[in-house]
Amino acid sequence: MPVTNRQIRLARRPVGPVRQEDWTLTEEPVTGPADGWFLGRTRYLSLDPAMRGWLDDRPSYLPPVGLGEVMRAGSILEVVESAHPDFRVGEFVSGSFGVQEYALSDGRGTRRIDPAAAPLPTHLGALGTPGMTAYFGLLEVGALNEGETVAVSGAAGAVGSLVGQIAKLKGCRVIGIAGGPAKCAWLTEELGFDAAVDYQTEDVRKALRTHAPDGIDVYFDNVGGTVLDAALTRLAVHARVVICGAISQYNNEHTVQGPANYLSLLVRRARMQGFVVFDYVTRYPEAAREIAGWIADGRLSTREHLVKGGVDAFPETFQMLFRGANTGKLILDLT
Amino acid sequence: MPVTNRQIRLARRPVGPVRQEDWTLTEEPVTGPADGWFLGRTRYLSLDPAMRGWLDDRPSYLPPVGLGEVMRAGSILEVVESAHPDFRVGEFVSGSFGVQEYALSDGRGTRRIDPAAAPLPTHLGALGTPGMTAYFGLLEVGALNEGETVAVSGAAGAVGSLVGQIAKLKGCRVIGIAGGPAKCAWLTEELGFDAAVDYQTEDVRKALRTHAPDGIDVYFDNVGGTVLDAALTRLAVHARVVICGAISQYNNEHTVQGPANYLSLLVRRARMQGFVVFDYVTRYPEAAREIAGWIADGRLSTREHLVKGGVDAFPETFQMLFRGANTGKLILDLT
Repeated sequence: MPVTNRQIRLARRPVGPVRQEDWTLTEEPVTGPADGWFLGRTRYLSLDPAMRGWLDDRPSYLPPVGLGEVMRAGSILEVVESAHPDFRVGEFVSGSFGVQEYALSDGRGTRRIDPAAAPLPTHLGALGTPGMTAYFGLLEVGALNEGETVAVSGAAGAVGSLVGQIAKLKGCRVIGIAGGPAKCAWLTEELGFDAAVDYQTEDVRKALRTHAPDGIDVYFDNVGGTVLDAALTRLAVHARVVICGAISQYNNEHTVQGPANYLSLLVRRARMQGFVVFDYVTRYPEAAREIAGWIADGRLSTREHLVKGGVDAFPETFQMLFRGANTGKLILDLT
Repeated sequence: MPVTNRQIRLARRPVGPVRQEDWTLTEEPVTGPADGWFLGRTRYLSLDPAMRGWLDDRPSYLPPVGLGEVMRAGSILEVVESAHPDFRVGEFVSGSFGVQEYALSDGRGTRRIDPAAAPLPTHLGALGTPGMTAYFGLLEVGALNEGETVAVSGAAGAVGSLVGQIAKLKGCRVIGIAGGPAKCAWLTEELGFDAAVDYQTEDVRKALRTHAPDGIDVYFDNVGGTVLDAALTRLAVHARVVICGAISQYNNEHTVQGPANYLSLLVRRARMQGFVVFDYVTRYPEAAREIAGWIADGRLSTREHLVKGGVDAFPETFQMLFRGANTGKLILDLT
């Protein structure tokens, strides 16, 4: 099969927002799989705010993407050629295969996907890393209890929209913080959040005082910056602040804005805790089972924001995350 | 007994560092105790950085000191007149009796002191609130395990010097961060710390890299600001950051400097947790017993920095805390 594999590679380290020139589009011939390997064609490609952190040359939970390397990304492949005993042509797998049209794999670190369980894109959303992140972040790191009050930022994003719904399923009161009236309406009218705060037009601190008069027990933060600081002023005693991400800070050229109100942790006997979802990988099946059950019962809504295009559309699509242009899980649809 | 009680009262709310004019010295006649009460004369008065927070008119773990009120302070009283069945003249009690020469008490919230267990000032230090703060902050909030690496800021202060020593007693490696060569020498040469970092002359981040090459498991923070940020860059995986105070920030006129490196909590799967020692009051006896045992065995050094003077010396003495002028527990000695 003399076809070409197009790839997006990191051309230079971005300073501040990522620019088109930080990427390069390369082509190379596709080679067939060696013994024990299979070749897959990328069907759906995941776009995630955390990818911005992988571009900086500093120690983190994963090594930075090297200059000239294919950009790291989760995706769903369809097996198109196989010399691996466990993977057959036509099967679907998810894994970290990079921003490219074809990938070779020996099966390590891949997850086989059941297209009958949910549409393929959902396996990158509610049944993929965002689902695992919401589930373990809220229930394990946040140590959620029934009847508590939960606030979540980035609430209309891939993770936030699941955090709020899972909290509702666990018998909690939920306040979502998101940007713009359409997202806020989606949270309260379709996802069943108790309240939504539009950070673009509302005073978040005051709004949280209104919607959480007795304080916030679990605050799940995806954004950092001023929204995190506002939430810190409204913690209940023994609150848990889950640090999942800080999208407002990822493109800073210099330093991150630290939470000036962190001494609320002392006054409110609260904790702020970070996590990396990969640490829970052995428990993904249990989470996926429970989430799939909620989806099947119609108790959890999944939403993917599909952008149709080739890998060359990756740079532009990636920037949507930082403009808040997506609702639900942002996915590049290469089908 | 027609004597006069001199008192320090809050005259106005300080902005930034507290000035002499923020206080007022008042006098009033001492009245005898009503039935069920006793009268005590202040012998030793505790000075603590947390007092600065009590002067600001904002919600905290205790209500602010009201304008015109006697300044809140812990102290040791000698009972000089008693109409209370459980307190006899000549006994010593500790409690929150305020910055004044005499105080009336019905016994609530007081602790009887055994002068045979340790010198009276030690009951405001290692056997008082600083001791309880170090003990529960390190062992409960910090969830310390044997063999871990501990770093503590404000290490030559009342709490910090005990944190480090307790960590050593629990089989840990300890790095103290303090200001100036004399304090640093005291930590390593007399208290048995493994290393000391002088934040006034050293790059704290680099020094911590040298002294804790495998990272810090428990960081006990008394100071906030740049020292906290430096420590956050050196956390081990699953580290616990104990927020006890932030003396570098208490006199800020505007906002607190938030920890810009808080996203280390995510990368290192770490938590940052605040606490208020009063929550452990029912467990004070168990801590005091263990600490008293260490003192008796010569395994824990106590040090109080006594300033001899009347209550009128309180304003000036209080400022010593923010200049780092004390080593060990700062106490006004009214005897």
